[in-house]
Amino acid sequence: VQLTDTLSVDQTGWHLTEIGWNPDRAVAVGSNFLCGNGYLGYRGTTPEQGAEDYVALVVTDTYDCADGLWRELTTAPNPLFVAARRGAGPIGAAMGDHVSTSLDLRSGTFSARYEQVIDGANVVVEVERFASYDNLHLLAQRWRLRSDSALTLALDVGIDGQVWSLNGDHLPSTVRTAHGDVLSAVGTTGESGITVAVAAAGSVDVNGELLEANETVDADGRIVRRVMVDLTAGDEVTVRTTAAVVSSNDVGNPADRAVTIVGEGIEQTYDELVDASCLVWDRIWEATDVIVEGDIVSQASLRFSAYHNRISAPAHSDHLPVGARGLSCQAYQGAAFWDQEIYNLPAFLFSEPEIARNLLIYRHRTLDGARRKAQRLGHRGAFFAWISGVTGDELCPDFFFEDVLTGRPIRNHFNVWQMHVSPDVVTTIADYVHITGDEDYLVDFGAEIAFEVARFLRSFVRYDDVRQSYHCIRLLGPDEWHENVDDNAFTNYQTHAALTFAIETHERLSTSHPDALSDLSRRLDLTDLEIDRWRHVRDHLVLPGADPESGLIEQFDRFFELEDVLPDTVAERLLDPEEYWGWPNGVAVHTQVSKQADVAMLLWLQRNRFPVEVLRANYHYYEPRCSHASSLSHAAFGMVALDIGEVEAAVRHFRSTATIDLLNTNDAVVGGTFIGGIHTAACGGTYQLAVQGFGGLQCLDGRLAIRPVLPPDWASLTYPVRWRDHRLSVAVTQTEIAVTADAANPGPVEVTIGDRAISVPAGESVTV
Amino acid sequence: VQLTDTLSVDQTGWHLTEIGWNPDRAVAVGSNFLCGNGYLGYRGTTPEQGAEDYVALVVTDTYDCADGLWRELTTAPNPLFVAARRGAGPIGAAMGDHVSTSLDLRSGTFSARYEQVIDGANVVVEVERFASYDNLHLLAQRWRLRSDSALTLALDVGIDGQVWSLNGDHLPSTVRTAHGDVLSAVGTTGESGITVAVAAAGSVDVNGELLEANETVDADGRIVRRVMVDLTAGDEVTVRTTAAVVSSNDVGNPADRAVTIVGEGIEQTYDELVDASCLVWDRIWEATDVIVEGDIVSQASLRFSAYHNRISAPAHSDHLPVGARGLSCQAYQGAAFWDQEIYNLPAFLFSEPEIARNLLIYRHRTLDGARRKAQRLGHRGAFFAWISGVTGDELCPDFFFEDVLTGRPIRNHFNVWQMHVSPDVVTTIADYVHITGDEDYLVDFGAEIAFEVARFLRSFVRYDDVRQSYHCIRLLGPDEWHENVDDNAFTNYQTHAALTFAIETHERLSTSHPDALSDLSRRLDLTDLEIDRWRHVRDHLVLPGADPESGLIEQFDRFFELEDVLPDTVAERLLDPEEYWGWPNGVAVHTQVSKQADVAMLLWLQRNRFPVEVLRANYHYYEPRCSHASSLSHAAFGMVALDIGEVEAAVRHFRSTATIDLLNTNDAVVGGTFIGGIHTAACGGTYQLAVQGFGGLQCLDGRLAIRPVLPPDWASLTYPVRWRDHRLSVAVTQTEIAVTADAANPGPVEVTIGDRAISVPAGESVTV
Repeated sequence: VQLTDTLSVDQTGWHLTEIGWNPDRAVAVGSNFLCGNGYLGYRGTTPEQGAEDYVALVVTDTYDCADGLWRELTTAPNPLFVAARRGAGPIGAAMGDHVSTSLDLRSGTFSARYEQVIDGANVVVEVERFASYDNLHLLAQRWRLRSDSALTLALDVGIDGQVWSLNGDHLPSTVRTAHGDVLSAVGTTGESGITVAVAAAGSVDVNGELLEANETVDADGRIVRRVMVDLTAGDEVTVRTTAAVVSSNDVGNPADRAVTIVGEGIEQTYDELVDASCLVWDRIWEATDVIVEGDIVSQASLRFSAYHNRISAPAHSDHLPVGARGLSCQAYQGAAFWDQEIYNLPAFLFSEPEIARNLLIYRHRTLDGARRKAQRLGHRGAFFAWISGVTGDELCPDFFFEDVLTGRPIRNHFNVWQMHVSPDVVTTIADYVHITGDEDYLVDFGAEIAFEVARFLRSFVRYDDVRQSYHCIRLLGPDEWHENVDDNAFTNYQTHAALTFAIETHERLSTSHPDALSDLSRRLDLTDLEIDRWRHVRDHLVLPGADPESGLIEQFDRFFELEDVLPDTVAERLLDPEEYWGWPNGVAVHTQVSKQADVAMLLWLQRNRFPVEVLRANYHYYEPRCSHASSLSHAAFGMVALDIGEVEAAVRHFRSTATIDLLNTNDAVVGGTFIGGIHTAACGGTYQLAVQGFGGLQCLDGRLAIRPVLPPDWASLTYPVRWRDHRLSVAVTQTEIAVTADAANPGPVEVTIGDRAISVPAGESVTV
Repeated sequence: VQLTDTLSVDQTGWHLTEIGWNPDRAVAVGSNFLCGNGYLGYRGTTPEQGAEDYVALVVTDTYDCADGLWRELTTAPNPLFVAARRGAGPIGAAMGDHVSTSLDLRSGTFSARYEQVIDGANVVVEVERFASYDNLHLLAQRWRLRSDSALTLALDVGIDGQVWSLNGDHLPSTVRTAHGDVLSAVGTTGESGITVAVAAAGSVDVNGELLEANETVDADGRIVRRVMVDLTAGDEVTVRTTAAVVSSNDVGNPADRAVTIVGEGIEQTYDELVDASCLVWDRIWEATDVIVEGDIVSQASLRFSAYHNRISAPAHSDHLPVGARGLSCQAYQGAAFWDQEIYNLPAFLFSEPEIARNLLIYRHRTLDGARRKAQRLGHRGAFFAWISGVTGDELCPDFFFEDVLTGRPIRNHFNVWQMHVSPDVVTTIADYVHITGDEDYLVDFGAEIAFEVARFLRSFVRYDDVRQSYHCIRLLGPDEWHENVDDNAFTNYQTHAALTFAIETHERLSTSHPDALSDLSRRLDLTDLEIDRWRHVRDHLVLPGADPESGLIEQFDRFFELEDVLPDTVAERLLDPEEYWGWPNGVAVHTQVSKQADVAMLLWLQRNRFPVEVLRANYHYYEPRCSHASSLSHAAFGMVALDIGEVEAAVRHFRSTATIDLLNTNDAVVGGTFIGGIHTAACGGTYQLAVQGFGGLQCLDGRLAIRPVLPPDWASLTYPVRWRDHRLSVAVTQTEIAVTADAANPGPVEVTIGDRAISVPAGESVTV
């Protein structure tokens, strides 16, 4: 099935193929066909390509600032480099015919194939590669060339340091070494002093017969084994590369470790390495795969989203974030935004809650950074970074975008005013504890976060003596085009919810874990008086209500006084298509045009709070005024559309959010800043919209509830559920809902379907 | 004495002369040589000139909005139009040789002289004119031409509607009529519906023999009497014009009134009209003239400033403001800014306090406008307009400047965030009452203003629950390049002072005028509880103190975190010389470069509050970082320089502020907006710096105090003083201070000179 002129998916829904080679698609295809495992991301490029083709191996936990402005992840030298030359004529996808590149989502395998005519010889090149889930440092690749005529080739196989790096050179001096058959390149980041080591071993055989390298060449930042190959008609030459990347944040001697991993890797066949990784993929898909029958595009884009959301998550670690672009490139600095808690993480709550837990422990590990940020800005408690790396210190620079009309940097205030991230973390902790019942997490980590955020919120709000109310002043809500606003509805409700959770957690722990609470209170210097003040703030915080006439909730104080125009009109005022629309003087600033869902975010996150008429009024008001310029937007509107019974609109939003990257609908450069790569939040949002939206999965009053709404085109929707100690499978058709409990479950599981409470014994199935 | 290449002053210090005709100087000379009387302003142009030469007759109380954006004063048709033609060859200053234009400050008389050769005839033209202080509607002009050869001329004498109007045509249709010898032009403003009528009668005589007009011509917006004149060698033709302008805000039938005034005016000779006006000027100069011996430039520029400050003041009215450009043009909308209370008005406190009183009654009359503004912005009480016309409603448009790089309007927030104007009005009321002892004003007007401003301030501040303090959030201080700041030191101290005055006024009236207070409280719904809350706010308001180490007062919260560069460096970053430096993204925004005095304003206005070391530290920190791009700046720094004993620096600031208009040092167009014309605040500041600065005149603890500091170049400084019922003259030399009491004083006057308390009986003189 064709998704675009060049992109198709097979009937299994697992296999994506791009036909042709187009440099304009290089950014998108390289991201879409990424191999990764939460530790590294290797872009979907062919082995002979270089920096100009956006080749990059992005490694987690390697933050470095090379240009004085952007602290981002490091791209390592490319250990999968293979270049074939015949005299001066290079061989490669860019020169090839019948080029196709593919990604198999099931196994995380990238492949490419192209043909080329070299002095009358017809050559076929095939590549496949994967990033191992069995050993997260490991990459393996197989490159094959067949010729129908005699041909002599020079093959360069090794490590290429000429890779894409977004903002400066993070490894200014790299040491390249040959250790027998294993090559390595080891560099240290210039600012942060992290050593990044890659190692690679490439074996070359013709029809299975191994060839020795003629020489080792170290030039132009590249170390390769050069192998001269003489082919006769019908011969096939294969380069099998086994590679590893390790940083000094992983082990003491990353260079040794990388060489060792490669040494161990070459003891196994390529297929054995594939199989070991696939075992892990089996478990992942068992826990997460959602099956849509009757709509192959939705099926494929949903799997694509689940794939990317999963490989962006550092599931192996409890001290690393999910990057807003995952490990697909360095954009957004490989760092966590609120996207992590609102988009990425909730996709794991009912499937792999251990990952959600790790991500929430990450927030605990970064509390000190959040405390430093709060203190620096004159607040108390924990003000989480807008762009949060490994320490939790703010990575967002003061000047984010650029005024393309004048070339002046723009002082965006994401780093100092966009404070909803702190309450967002807390409400997600509340959801996590609610859904998983993981009280240990709450005691060990969650309570401290909640208390420090409550402390921050109290110091952030300001009291109006006349109106006798607290206000959130000078902030950005979700809609980033409107900076410097007050009482953003979303933010105030989230603040209210976070304060409430902190207060309730304090009450709960004083009963259930008095000693732990006592220790924590001593450590945080927390008194009952302070809890009382939180209560006072919570009880007097302005919560912008729905207008009794119109049902509208005002996005922020005086939003409705702004010019009421639609995005198309505003777009006509652009002087340059790359102009940033927002602060301080962009075309949207003085209008009601929003970048993204804002009030809709509130209606989604506080899902059962407002009556359906309010949802309907706000959906119909805000949706046409939203440009959806953010990848976060459609999932929220989709969820609200579902909740007001507008299924067709919900499907539209689902398709929009699910295909942002596949169809490459969002600009890669805005206001002079590169923001391309995989929109991992959209991936998480797609998964949530499928399972929690169409699939209707919720946790209501501590019970699992299923209230599905199936689009008319979907014959069925099937998804797995983890619910505390239980595993379930839910299958929804146009007429039935079947819940099947795993045979290994510890007992029956209680589920509310629609309004019916049912109990499903282990190993049994109930159909409604 | 030459002030510039073209501008000189005579030895009396009263007479300014500009040599030559230069279109580039037309804006400045026309403003500098303005005739005016607080009711009208007639620019210093020659009678044949028109709109392109910036001819304008600006009339007070004629606010109208013609372009949808700028509500400004109307320019009336020019009733002093005289054009002489011989065939196709026009006669005029632009074509003339030996052109000189002059202003006699003593009598407010403009004059011009030029020579021209017309077909071999040498012609000399002389003009003089004045705006009457005897009848504020009246203008009179004498135009004379002498020829040394025979010459035939066509003279057009009448009313020209083709005049300069800054923002649109305010009188879209004007009716022109001839009533016997009197011509009139009557129009109604398009938006506000105010009728503006001018009338003019021009008599033409040759060597004293009157000529009749040949015809009346009404064409191209101009109505004139055409007179054919045949001159023989040595003949002189004189056109004497008597004119009047009246609006429907003055009388019910302004057209009749204008014609009547002209009819009465022509009953008198030109010299009789001059004399009647000069009688008023005599009284004005008696009350205000400051004599500087030994420095003619200072003398002249000081008189120039006193002249313009006086003719900009609507002394005849208690419901009109002083415009920031007076009546010299329409820039800044003929409206009051905080300049009125801080710069213009204090110059009258010790000379013509009745004018100060009228201006402060004006603030009372505009309370409803200030209340409307407060309410519209969600506050209570009175939030005075940043740009205040006759109703007190905000005249400042949302978009004030333009981004010259993109052509986009800039959303400056002078109208909604620059809130210090309200406390500024109150502290000036405090000064007025303090200096004049005018308790009636306080009871009838001042108390209500103070209470409503206190009410506003309480609703404006926000409480920080953690720090237990009130803060002024999101504002502009005096320095307009930094919008959206918190706790601007100047603003917070002014807020504190205004709250204190309101509280003390409440206490005072509860004793001295309990019934009036009771009435007022009932009318304002003011309770003791509310006064208690004012006290609470006042006592917990953050007052940024001087750093104990450096002595520095931070201009606003986190100001010292901004880039520390000097104005010259910042100027190098301009992409366009006309660029606005301030909000939102101008070159000064993210730096410590200020447009104008800010902390220095605080040190000036709260003059004896801080120790001299603090004054010194802040003067030396902030002065080099200040661009002095505002005409308000130098007076404040001059006052602080004097208070730290740096007399040379003070003289420099004095000269800078006194010659802004004479030397035309400030840009007439900034960010696309015309802001030329007379800088009346600098005029008021010059006068204050002379009398209250160098002259050392103060009111300290209710006593008159004189602590002069004479610049080394000044042989003497003599100034008159009004102090309650007393009139004094103070003469300061390098060695002595002589205080002479008027013989008509009701008794001895107590004066503190330096630290000595003396008493000066009526009619006597005491020298120290």
